[in-house]
Amino acid sequence: MSKIDVAIIGASGYTGGELMRLLSRHNNVNIKYVTSRKNEGEYVSELHPNLETLDLKFSNPDPKDIDADLVFSALPHGASMKLVPEYLNNDSRVIDLSGDFRFKDIETYEKWYHKEHLHPELNAVFGSPEINRELIKDADLIANPGCFVTGAILSSLPIVENELVDRIILDSKTGVSGAGVNPSATTHYPTCTDNVKPYSISNHRHTPEIREQLNNFGSGNVKISFTPHLVPVIRGIITTNHSFLLKDDVTAEDVYSLYSEYYKDEPFVQVLKDNKVPLLASVRGSNNCQIGGISLDDMDHLVIVSAIDNLVKGASGQAIQNMNIMFGFDETEGLKEVGLYP
Amino acid sequence: MSKIDVAIIGASGYTGGELMRLLSRHNNVNIKYVTSRKNEGEYVSELHPNLETLDLKFSNPDPKDIDADLVFSALPHGASMKLVPEYLNNDSRVIDLSGDFRFKDIETYEKWYHKEHLHPELNAVFGSPEINRELIKDADLIANPGCFVTGAILSSLPIVENELVDRIILDSKTGVSGAGVNPSATTHYPTCTDNVKPYSISNHRHTPEIREQLNNFGSGNVKISFTPHLVPVIRGIITTNHSFLLKDDVTAEDVYSLYSEYYKDEPFVQVLKDNKVPLLASVRGSNNCQIGGISLDDMDHLVIVSAIDNLVKGASGQAIQNMNIMFGFDETEGLKEVGLYP
Amino acid sequence: MSKIDVAIIGASGYTGGELMRLLSRHNNVNIKYVTSRKNEGEYVSELHPNLETLDLKFSNPDPKDIDADLVFSALPHGASMKLVPEYLNNDSRVIDLSGDFRFKDIETYEKWYHKEHLHPELNAVFGSPEINRELIKDADLIANPGCFVTGAILSSLPIVENELVDRIILDSKTGVSGAGVNPSATTHYPTCTDNVKPYSISNHRHTPEIREQLNNFGSGNVKISFTPHLVPVIRGIITTNHSFLLKDDVTAEDVYSLYSEYYKDEPFVQVLKDNKVPLLASVRGSNNCQIGGISLDDMDHLVIVSAIDNLVKGASGQAIQNMNIMFGFDETEGLKEVGLYP
Amino acid sequence: MSKIDVAIIGASGYTGGELMRLLSRHNNVNIKYVTSRKNEGEYVSELHPNLETLDLKFSNPDPKDIDADLVFSALPHGASMKLVPEYLNNDSRVIDLSGDFRFKDIETYEKWYHKEHLHPELNAVFGSPEINRELIKDADLIANPGCFVTGAILSSLPIVENELVDRIILDSKTGVSGAGVNPSATTHYPTCTDNVKPYSISNHRHTPEIREQLNNFGSGNVKISFTPHLVPVIRGIITTNHSFLLKDDVTAEDVYSLYSEYYKDEPFVQVLKDNKVPLLASVRGSNNCQIGGISLDDMDHLVIVSAIDNLVKGASGQAIQNMNIMFGFDETEGLKEVGLYP
Repeated sequence: MSKIDVAIIGASGYTGGELMRLLSRHNNVNIKYVTSRKNEGEYVSELHPNLETLDLKFSNPDPKDIDADLVFSALPHGASMKLVPEYLNNDSRVIDLSGDFRFKDIETYEKWYHKEHLHPELNAVFGSPEINRELIKDADLIANPGCFVTGAILSSLPIVENELVDRIILDSKTGVSGAGVNPSATTHYPTCTDNVKPYSISNHRHTPEIREQLNNFGSGNVKISFTPHLVPVIRGIITTNHSFLLKDDVTAEDVYSLYSEYYKDEPFVQVLKDNKVPLLASVRGSNNCQIGGISLDDMDHLVIVSAIDNLVKGASGQAIQNMNIMFGFDETEGLKEVGLYP
Repeated sequence: MSKIDVAIIGASGYTGGELMRLLSRHNNVNIKYVTSRKNEGEYVSELHPNLETLDLKFSNPDPKDIDADLVFSALPHGASMKLVPEYLNNDSRVIDLSGDFRFKDIETYEKWYHKEHLHPELNAVFGSPEINRELIKDADLIANPGCFVTGAILSSLPIVENELVDRIILDSKTGVSGAGVNPSATTHYPTCTDNVKPYSISNHRHTPEIREQLNNFGSGNVKISFTPHLVPVIRGIITTNHSFLLKDDVTAEDVYSLYSEYYKDEPFVQVLKDNKVPLLASVRGSNNCQIGGISLDDMDHLVIVSAIDNLVKGASGQAIQNMNIMFGFDETEGLKEVGLYP
Repeated sequence: MSKIDVAIIGASGYTGGELMRLLSRHNNVNIKYVTSRKNEGEYVSELHPNLETLDLKFSNPDPKDIDADLVFSALPHGASMKLVPEYLNNDSRVIDLSGDFRFKDIETYEKWYHKEHLHPELNAVFGSPEINRELIKDADLIANPGCFVTGAILSSLPIVENELVDRIILDSKTGVSGAGVNPSATTHYPTCTDNVKPYSISNHRHTPEIREQLNNFGSGNVKISFTPHLVPVIRGIITTNHSFLLKDDVTAEDVYSLYSEYYKDEPFVQVLKDNKVPLLASVRGSNNCQIGGISLDDMDHLVIVSAIDNLVKGASGQAIQNMNIMFGFDETEGLKEVGLYP
Repeated sequence: MSKIDVAIIGASGYTGGELMRLLSRHNNVNIKYVTSRKNEGEYVSELHPNLETLDLKFSNPDPKDIDADLVFSALPHGASMKLVPEYLNNDSRVIDLSGDFRFKDIETYEKWYHKEHLHPELNAVFGSPEINRELIKDADLIANPGCFVTGAILSSLPIVENELVDRIILDSKTGVSGAGVNPSATTHYPTCTDNVKPYSISNHRHTPEIREQLNNFGSGNVKISFTPHLVPVIRGIITTNHSFLLKDDVTAEDVYSLYSEYYKDEPFVQVLKDNKVPLLASVRGSNNCQIGGISLDDMDHLVIVSAIDNLVKGASGQAIQNMNIMFGFDETEGLKEVGLYP
C-alpha cells in the first residue's frame, strides 16, 4: 500500500516523541519532517533516547515549504494557531494537538486561554472518534482533545446522553508527563515524588472543553466541575467520575450494562469484564481507555472510573487514530500495542 | 518530671513502629513493653531497621501481667476487642488504634466489620482532640480514629457545623503504608508504583465512622460519600472534599476565614497562609494536618483539601496526642517534629 | 506465511505475561496454550490486566498432550527440569527460561541451586544470540540466559575476548519485576520504594553463569565478581562494569571503538552515539541493550555501562529472538518496539 | 543553658531547609538570621512548606552586619569563598557547607573546581568528626565534607588505616535531593523516576576529596576510584565499597569485627547487628551512618556497604554535629531523631 507523507511540527516535546515512537511502526506512513527550531540538525535521539535506532534528525523548514499529506502540529497553544492556516494553504490536512481550535465558542477560548483568537473563521472537527467519527473522515482540520477531556468525556457520555444525572464532579489524577518536557519546580523529582498535589482546583482550562462537548448531549444542562491532581506517576490519567443518580430504580448493574452496550464497537474503549476497576498500569503506552469500577452507595452517589495514557489516548495515539479515520486506514493501524504491565 | 510506663501491644506493625519512633524521644514516657507474639525475643530493629539504636526487644507477656499506666493496643480489629477489657481490669488506661470501639452504634460496627461485638458495654471516647479534648482528659478508653476519618473530619467540621452544605463527597488519596506491613498483590512494588488504584469505591469501612462523627454536628443530616484511592506514596492522605454551597452569598474567602478561625488554637491543624494547597510532602513524619486550597467554581462547587501523615496524625501521633491530654502533659510533647521535606 | 503453534507453560508470572504481550502481535505465531495450574479457566486478563483485549484463558493440559512446534517453559527452576524432557519427547522444540539447563558444568548447577540435576544428559544451547547465533538455529533446547547475565555478558565480551582486563566487578542495579510476581517483604511498596538494597552481595546465582560464559573467551581466566542491588524501578537492569586496563596505551576511545565495531551488526545491541550513558528509561519495554558511558580514570579504572529491560532482553524478548532464529523468521519480528520513554 | 546565635546564609536550598528543620528543635541555638537574596521578606514556608509553623522570614543583611556566634554558609562553591572571610572578621565561627575549603592542596581544588582559590591562606578543619573530633573543638572554620565523601570515608577508613587493601572502587547510588533545589532536565520527574543514571563516571569532584582524606591513613597509596549513580529516591546515599583483600587469611568476619570495634564509640555510626545490609530507608531523615553487608567472595573481592541521608549526615546534620563539638554541647543534641521508616 502506498504511504502518506507526514510532518510532525514541534517534535521535541513528549507528544512529538510519542508520535515518532508510534508512527515509526505504522505501515501507511512515511515520517517526512520532524521539526524543532531549537534542535535543528540534532538526532531525535538526543531528546528522545528511546529512538536511538531511528535515523531521524530535527529540521526547521519554512512552513510554506512543508509538502505533506498530513501535518501534526504539536506546538503550544497560541503558536499553533499562527501556523495552522499555512499548512492548510499548502493542501496539507492538519491535526492540531494544542487547545487552539477545540472551542466552537471563541469567547470561551479567549476567556480561558487569555488571548485573542487569530483565526475564528477556521472550522475544526473536535477529534474524539467516539463522538465525531463520521465528521473526522472528511475533515481538513482536527482539534485533538485535551488529555483530561478524553478521560472525562468517555467516563460521562452514556449517563449524560441518557439524562441519568444533572451534576458531575470529575476528580482526576494525572501523571507528570502531562506537564510536558520542560522542568519546573512542580516537576522537580525530590518534591514531585512521594507527593500528591491538587492544582487549578476550580479553574483548569480543560473544564470548559469538557462542558462544551458533554452538553451537546442529553439535556444540555449538566453542571460539570473538574479538579485535577498531580500524582507521582509518569503517564496516565485516572478520572473518578462522581455523580448523583436522578432516578431511584437505576442500579449500578444497569449503569454497567449501559456502558458496555454504548462502547461495544469501539476499538479502543473497554468496559472491563466483571466491572473491574481500571488501573493506570493496564493502559500504559497503549491507546486504550478502560472503564469500570461502576459503584453506587446508599446516598445515590454514583462512581465511574476511566483510565487512559495521557500521552497516547490522551494525545498522540488519539491523533493517529484520527489520522487513520481521515485517510481510510484500519483504525487500529500503528496502535495495536497493549499496555506495558508491569 | 516522673514518667509513665506504657505498653505497646502488637508492636510489629507500622503503627507500633511509629509509636516507638515517637515515644523513644518523649520526655514523660518509659516504654516498658513492646509485644509481639510472632517476634518474641527479637530486637525491634529486626522489623524496624530505623530503630537500630533502640535497645528494645519484643516480649509476649500474659495480658494479666502487664503493669502499665497506659496501654496502646495496635492489634487488628477483632483481636483488640478481646484484650482491651483485660488491660482496663489491670487499671491501665487504654488507647485502642483498631476500629473496635469507634462506634456508638454497635449495629453499624457489626454490619461493616462483619463480626459480633464482644463488649458493647464498654464506653470509649472517640479520640479526636479537635472534637473531644475535654472528654479525653478523663477517659480510660480511647478509640483512636481511622486514618481516612481524621483527614475527612478535619476538612469537613466547619462547613458541617455551620450548615453550609448538605452533601459531601470525600475523594481521598492514600499512601501505601495504610495497607499495613503485610505484603500483598496490591502492595507489590512492580504494580503498585506508577499506578493509581481506586478501591472499596462505595463501601469502605471508614464511611460510617465519618458519618457518625460529622452528623453529631450541624443539621445531623449531611449526606456523606467516600471514595479512597491508593497512590504510589509511602505515607500520607490527601482528602479532596467536594461539596455544594447552599447559600449564594458565601465566597471561597468566607470559607477560608471560617476555617482559619475554627482551628486557630489547634496545635496540630494549620489552615495555610494565603490559602496554599496542602501537600503530602509537607506533613511527612509529622503530626500536622494542613488545610487549604479552598476554592469555589461557578457551579457552587466547593473544594477543601486536607493533608495528613496517615501513620502519625492518622494513627500513632494522634494516639500520643491523646495520651498527652489524658496525662496532663504538654499536648505537643514528643510531637514537635515538622515534616521531612523533601 | 504459515504460523507455528506455541505453548507458554507457567504463564501466570511476569515472563509469561511478557511472552503473551509480545507474541500477540507476532506475525508468525499462533498462541495455542497458555498454562497455569492455579489459574486454569480464568481469563489471562485476571492476572495481566493489560491483556484485557486478548481473548485467552489459562488451561492446564497434561504435558503429554501438548501439541506445539515450540514450548516456552516459564516455570521456576527445578519444576522446569522435570517437564522439559516431556515436551522434547512430543517433538516440540523448547526454550527454557529457568536456570535449569544453563550450565555445562552440572556440579556448578548443583552447588549454586542446591538441588540434584535430573537430566544432565540433555544438551542445551545457551540462548545468547550474540554468542551462539549459529548453534541456536538448529537447537531443540535453548537455555535462555538469566536477566543479570545478559547485561553482564554484553558489557564484558569485547574486553574479555581481547584480553584487555583480568578482573571485572559487575555492580548491577535491577528493577523489582526481577523478583517475580509473588509479593514478599522485599517487594512491599512502603519499604521497597525510596530505597536501595544490595542483596546476595557475594553469592548471587547468576555469578557462576556469567563466569562460565565469559571464560569461554580470551584467556579463560578473568576473575569475575558480581553484586546486585534492588532499586525502586519496575523494569530494567543497569550494569556498571568496573575493570582495570592491563595495557597503558589503550584509551577510553579505543574501547568505545572496539565495542562499536564488535556489535555493529547486532540488531538489538546499540553502542550509543557519542558514547552517551545508557538509561533504563530508554530501553523500557524493548528488546534493546544499550551500551555506553565508557570511561577511564587516572587509576586505570575502566567503566562500561549497559542497560536492558530485564523482562524483555533479559527474559521473554530474548526468548522470542531465539525463537525467530530457530524457525528462520526475521530476527526482529515481534520485537520492533522501541522503549517507552518517558 | 544560654543559647548561641546562628546565621544560616543561603537558606533557600535543601541544606538550608534541613538546618532550619533540625535547629528549630535544638535546645542551645537561637536562629537569628536565615538569608536569601532572592527571597528576602518571604516566609521560609514559601520555599520549605514543612516549616509552616516556623515564624521565620528570609532576610538579606550585609555580611558585615551579621552578628552571630556561628555562621553556617550554605552558599554554592565560589560564592562561599568570597564571604567566609567577612564572617570570620566579625568574630563569628564558620561552618562552610561548600567545597571551597575542603582541600589542603589548593592546586587540586583549582583543577577540579575550575576556578582560582581566593583565600588559600585560610586554614579550615575538615569537618569529619570521626577523623578530626579534637581539631574541630577549637576550629574557627570548618569545611563540611561532601555528601558522597562522608559515606565513602566511613566505609573505607578501617581497611585503609589497617592496610588491608590497595585499591578501592566506590560505586555510589544517590538520591535526587543531592542535585539541589533547582529543577533541571536531569531531575525532571517523568525521566528521573523509574530510571537509574550513572553520571560523572570517572570525574566527579568528590573523587579528589575522598582521596586526600583517605590517604592521610595507612600506606597513603590506595588507588581510589569513584562512580556515582542517580537513583529515583529522594534522600540517601548507598555506597558499595569494592576492594580486594591483600592477605589470604583475613575473613569477612574479621573485617566485620574490625569495623565494629573501630566505630564502637561513635554516636552516629552503627555497624549493624548481625552484619545486616544497610538500607537508605533506615537512615532517612537521621544523622546516622549505617554500615554492614560485609562480604567476601572466592576472588578476594570484599564488599562493604554504607548508608547515609545525604542531606543530614551528608550535609546539614553533620554540620550541626560539628557545631555541637565546637561549642561544647552534647554531640547528639538536635540530632536524636531516628530514621523515618517506612
